[in-house]
Amino acid sequence: MLKLYIGNKNYSSWSMRPWMLMRQSGIHFDEVKLRFDSFAPDSQFKQQVLSLSPIGKVPLLVDDELIIWDSLAICEYLAERFPEKHLWPQHAAQRARARSLVSEMHSGFSSLRSLCPMNIEARLHEVGAQLWEQHADLRADVRRLEALWLPQLQAAHGPMLFEQFSIADAFFAPVCMRLNSYGLPTSQIVTAYVQRICLLPSTQEWVQGALAENDFLPFEEPYRTQR
Amino acid sequence: MLKLYIGNKNYSSWSMRPWMLMRQSGIHFDEVKLRFDSFAPDSQFKQQVLSLSPIGKVPLLVDDELIIWDSLAICEYLAERFPEKHLWPQHAAQRARARSLVSEMHSGFSSLRSLCPMNIEARLHEVGAQLWEQHADLRADVRRLEALWLPQLQAAHGPMLFEQFSIADAFFAPVCMRLNSYGLPTSQIVTAYVQRICLLPSTQEWVQGALAENDFLPFEEPYRTQR
Ligand SMILES: N[C@@H](CCC(=O)N[C@@H](CS)C(=O)NCC(=O)O)C(=O)O
Ligand SMILES: N[C@@H](CCC(=O)N[C@@H](CS)C(=O)NCC(=O)O)C(=O)O
Repeated sequence: MLKLYIGNKNYSSWSMRPWMLMRQSGIHFDEVKLRFDSFAPDSQFKQQVLSLSPIGKVPLLVDDELIIWDSLAICEYLAERFPEKHLWPQHAAQRARARSLVSEMHSGFSSLRSLCPMNIEARLHEVGAQLWEQHADLRADVRRLEALWLPQLQAAHGPMLFEQFSIADAFFAPVCMRLNSYGLPTSQIVTAYVQRICLLPSTQEWVQGALAENDFLPFEEPYRTQR
Repeated sequence: MLKLYIGNKNYSSWSMRPWMLMRQSGIHFDEVKLRFDSFAPDSQFKQQVLSLSPIGKVPLLVDDELIIWDSLAICEYLAERFPEKHLWPQHAAQRARARSLVSEMHSGFSSLRSLCPMNIEARLHEVGAQLWEQHADLRADVRRLEALWLPQLQAAHGPMLFEQFSIADAFFAPVCMRLNSYGLPTSQIVTAYVQRICLLPSTQEWVQGALAENDFLPFEEPYRTQR
């Protein structure tokens, strides 16, 4: 049985990606949550994760003897291991484009990621409005999202970025969570896509899990002082 | 014919990866260099690259109608398009591990990348020694490289990370350039691997190209004031 190690569902955007990919595609796995008490070297989280792999981060996928780290490497592994699930688009040109989108997310969008950390249970619309006004880089990141998504949603008429659900949607799902929590302004077509992602059964299950955690981690909370 | 758009060979570490992968594997392509006059919106570089793709960055691979951006997406595309070249290791577990290494490089090593930008022609050993003393994060990044590479080089007895040359080596080649330029201390086994990378024909050709540029770009030069 595959085993996926994840962090807190409310906060861990990188964990959400492969979790959601597997859940939405019907790939069975055991979930093991390592609570983020902190990322300090002596934290319980770090001790536990380092006992599994020297990367010291989640997500981690364990398949028998094999330990795979990094969300993107995990998704590629799953795509190879379950070819019948078509986790990437089937057409080569579409697949290439999907990988460009996913790789850009994997190494980019640093303003959106640092200014608007994922926090599923929080409603931070006022903070979002302020950040939006103050940070041109944040606006540029959201403009770039629009530029990436719009042609996909228009060409394929959705419902997902490459018609059917794929790794691309899983990779951008945590971004959809952020757009919601911080109330960042997006075009109608993009807003409708964000809603569709939020309504996927796998997203809903992840969100339920996040809400059930009842956890508040100050180092993940630049804006709230309590729940 | 495939066409690869790259930046200055002396500075553009992301361009080097797919270029070297193709050259070392005997994949024919046309190279188009877009000189980095600057990254400002009105620079010639930005104008040119934006006329090709809204990402506004190099490398870009053009295959007929298809434009693929991001070094990792380009490498995955090439691996699919030229299966006979075995650009990833052939064994599934090794391939998974190679992707973990490559993905970690793609999204990590931020201290090494920001403190020691690639600058092939420069000899910055004194700067490197100072940075080494001052920045624990830089030392941690190099320690992590050692931890990633050593088991590969010991298990496979090299010569490359996964015995034969693969995307993993292409991805770490610019790191080898940095270790050299800044004279950062590494173990014997790792130092020997860095030397082997430097002696590959494709590396040598790239380095010759870098040296022939005779270009000095102040915004890429935190440490030198002239050549
Ligand atoms: N590039 C990695 C990033 C993983 C990552 O940063 N995970 C966070 C949690 S969302 C973590 O474990 N951080 C621990 C730390 O930085 O010490 C991936 O895509 O999986
Ligand atoms: N994640 C991208 C990074 C590409 C990148 O940052 N390229 C640099 C040159 S090495 C660039 O074009 N920068 C232009 C800019 O930032 O405006 C990749 O892997 O290809």
